[in-house]
Amino acid sequence: MIPTQTANLQLDSSGRLKHFLTVEGLSRELLVKIMDTAESFASVTEQTVKKVPLLRGKTVVNLFFENSTRTRTTFEVAAKRLSADVLNLNIATSATSKGESLLDTIRNLEAMHVDMFVVRHTDSGAAHFIARHVAPHISVINGGDGRHAHPTQAMLDVFTIRKYKNDFSKLKVAIVGDILHSRVARSEIHALNTLDVAEVRVIGPKTLLPAAVESLGVSTFHNLEEGLNDVDVVIMLRLQKERMSGAFIPTEHEYFACFGLTEKRLACAKPDVIVMHPGPINRGVEIDSQVADGPHSVILQQVDHGIAVRMAILSMAMRPDLEASAGDRS
Amino acid sequence: MIPTQTANLQLDSSGRLKHFLTVEGLSRELLVKIMDTAESFASVTEQTVKKVPLLRGKTVVNLFFENSTRTRTTFEVAAKRLSADVLNLNIATSATSKGESLLDTIRNLEAMHVDMFVVRHTDSGAAHFIARHVAPHISVINGGDGRHAHPTQAMLDVFTIRKYKNDFSKLKVAIVGDILHSRVARSEIHALNTLDVAEVRVIGPKTLLPAAVESLGVSTFHNLEEGLNDVDVVIMLRLQKERMSGAFIPTEHEYFACFGLTEKRLACAKPDVIVMHPGPINRGVEIDSQVADGPHSVILQQVDHGIAVRMAILSMAMRPDLEASAGDRS
Amino acid sequence: MIPTQTANLQLDSSGRLKHFLTVEGLSRELLVKIMDTAESFASVTEQTVKKVPLLRGKTVVNLFFENSTRTRTTFEVAAKRLSADVLNLNIATSATSKGESLLDTIRNLEAMHVDMFVVRHTDSGAAHFIARHVAPHISVINGGDGRHAHPTQAMLDVFTIRKYKNDFSKLKVAIVGDILHSRVARSEIHALNTLDVAEVRVIGPKTLLPAAVESLGVSTFHNLEEGLNDVDVVIMLRLQKERMSGAFIPTEHEYFACFGLTEKRLACAKPDVIVMHPGPINRGVEIDSQVADGPHSVILQQVDHGIAVRMAILSMAMRPDLEASAGDRS
Repeated sequence: MIPTQTANLQLDSSGRLKHFLTVEGLSRELLVKIMDTAESFASVTEQTVKKVPLLRGKTVVNLFFENSTRTRTTFEVAAKRLSADVLNLNIATSATSKGESLLDTIRNLEAMHVDMFVVRHTDSGAAHFIARHVAPHISVINGGDGRHAHPTQAMLDVFTIRKYKNDFSKLKVAIVGDILHSRVARSEIHALNTLDVAEVRVIGPKTLLPAAVESLGVSTFHNLEEGLNDVDVVIMLRLQKERMSGAFIPTEHEYFACFGLTEKRLACAKPDVIVMHPGPINRGVEIDSQVADGPHSVILQQVDHGIAVRMAILSMAMRPDLEASAGDRS
Repeated sequence: MIPTQTANLQLDSSGRLKHFLTVEGLSRELLVKIMDTAESFASVTEQTVKKVPLLRGKTVVNLFFENSTRTRTTFEVAAKRLSADVLNLNIATSATSKGESLLDTIRNLEAMHVDMFVVRHTDSGAAHFIARHVAPHISVINGGDGRHAHPTQAMLDVFTIRKYKNDFSKLKVAIVGDILHSRVARSEIHALNTLDVAEVRVIGPKTLLPAAVESLGVSTFHNLEEGLNDVDVVIMLRLQKERMSGAFIPTEHEYFACFGLTEKRLACAKPDVIVMHPGPINRGVEIDSQVADGPHSVILQQVDHGIAVRMAILSMAMRPDLEASAGDRS
Repeated sequence: MIPTQTANLQLDSSGRLKHFLTVEGLSRELLVKIMDTAESFASVTEQTVKKVPLLRGKTVVNLFFENSTRTRTTFEVAAKRLSADVLNLNIATSATSKGESLLDTIRNLEAMHVDMFVVRHTDSGAAHFIARHVAPHISVINGGDGRHAHPTQAMLDVFTIRKYKNDFSKLKVAIVGDILHSRVARSEIHALNTLDVAEVRVIGPKTLLPAAVESLGVSTFHNLEEGLNDVDVVIMLRLQKERMSGAFIPTEHEYFACFGLTEKRLACAKPDVIVMHPGPINRGVEIDSQVADGPHSVILQQVDHGIAVRMAILSMAMRPDLEASAGDRS
């Protein structure tokens, strides 16, 4: 029932999820359906036998052109819990530097009748490129592409927020840190705005905020305490070590002094604020251990939810026939 | 019913496939049986649940002394579709430089009650060596050894030819490129001759044809257009980049000028010629993109067939008890 | 029924195995129960379908901070035979050099609802550290930590001894080689003493025996022939190549001359002596090929037993509900 978006590369002609490449352009209804489906899988991980046969006989290929044990592991666990077979392929980008040979790699895997590619790539747009050229029976999931998007991370974030907060429309959410280089931030901003949160704030030094970031529908702050004032949710971003040496920030120590999340600063937020982080965390760089391990932190719950959300996205994309029965809450 | 070949290391005392090391010495009947069994598996990959329980509880070890993501992946997919467990072991040749310690590696894996080794090795004869010393309950598949043989590739090639051409005995088949260093070519020549094709031609510069290659039962050509004249099947070989720098060929550009397959040259062949390539292809080196992606190309079908053929060989070698029911067309 | 040991980190409040970190502190009864359970699994590996559904839906994480294809493979095979899903994670120690970030790694995997960590680490105590901090539903198995312990190896060794010798209380067992650096030796000494063998001897050059080793309940010998006199079991240790260059031993050749096990020397032992080695063996360094491959050697049987023993430990730790029915012989 999302007829206006059938032109979206991610949706099939009935408006159901075919690929999952970016949160942009997806309807509120679809995001809610993903969260509802994830909810139904959350109980699976609590069972003694943590497996459902939904994707038995399906082959999921983790096609990682950029190394990430962490993200690869979450997709592998999600796929195996759905009884799919998993192929892990780590492909050095050098071997496929030409677009043409990337396509040849894809064509070959297609010919083996695999069912899904989870793509991680340093180039923005890689997952879209593959989705545009892939055989009709294959689904493509973006596991992070360049600085562009990391939509499954954004979905597990909003799923986590929904677990703790009842009504998106009343929430103030702050995203703190290196917005400029963060595909996570970009996807989160789209998801939060699609779900109509009251306000999305981005907080960081000027060197780490994109020019014209307000056009994404956020307000900007360069002072952490001001930005945290009265927020319901704080999402901390990981400070990539490789930014340290450049002109972006002076030193780790100075960064923490200005933008590190401490208990004292967190006191500016609402009393029931939740603190999130996509991981892995840099203790003492962007977040103090007392906060990371403290009562407001839901960082490990995010990891838990990440499995359920990925199970939801994998099964919705590969088993559209089941969609009718899911999403009762949508 | 192949009593004359019971001395063949690859066959058990009833003439059934035990190991699959080389096409040499195998009967026409056996090759046909492999193709018939592969035919029965081809439909499995079209099903929603692409799995059969034939090898449930069996353990297949991908024992790769030479790195090859591509070949390893096809065997892994084939084994998992048969419900086998797969162990991937990448063993640097340096660690087993002495034959004795290679044997110790084998003995240890044997003791874990694994059922099959798929062996890839830079040394010719490695798979034979292992098959000669392995415990009686274990099957060995040659996944490519030095310049010697790549028999599963040859079988998927003849399986592909049979899909498109009715009668082997009337076919003219050309193999083009670096015959000298190609284990694929060697295995293909044996398979095609065993299946009694009318003519096998090898086409390449003198530096890339083995001395006395005619003794293998082929005719030789040094001119591509002449060699292609009136053929039903063209098999292009990959030009290994490492040959470029040697005295074998002058430059990529010159090689393509003389031996690259273009649409114009392909016009010398029969109108319904099929073009094959073991992959990965070097576009613009041995084959033009217009041919690789054109209507005569069956290169991606080969990959598809590769899964079915490997499923056939794995199941025939590990489940000889089932052979009676298979191979109705043989 | 082991109430005196409920304080042991490895046992739950009912005295059942929860983690398996070291043989030290475990009762004779528990070691016997592990061996009895392993006995019941030994037959599984002889079946056509070598799989039991005991751990279906469970996720075993091979968390290897130190590379070991061999040990990783045995745990992977054991887990798959029990129908568990296996995640292989090779984590460079550099990435987790701080204890804190090791904990973050653990917390993240926990949050994915995995059920077991098999830990291999260069630091003594790493598995204990993880077991002490892990969530209550997770079991930790020590797959070798620094110079401290390798308890599953010790258990497969005593299981192997029990297969060949009826009564532990009458046995003389010699452990030969680099006792100083060997976690295997340390675990074996504890297991053998817990099982009340008559005598445990350690044999090696003074530089490779720990100071005050007798306090572990062993007698020491610096002469191989004297030490082997009248023993029932010889356990050879692997001589790590990295010890060669140091002051510990002069040369490989000299080491073999003094401490290499030859047929002649083995004649000092009982006529029905068995020879064991944890592998991989250095032929001609600590053991002569004639002995390694000779009639007294049970080295490959150890590998076989290693699968059964690891299946026993995995299932006992993850399915304590089944323990009542196991271990009839204990």
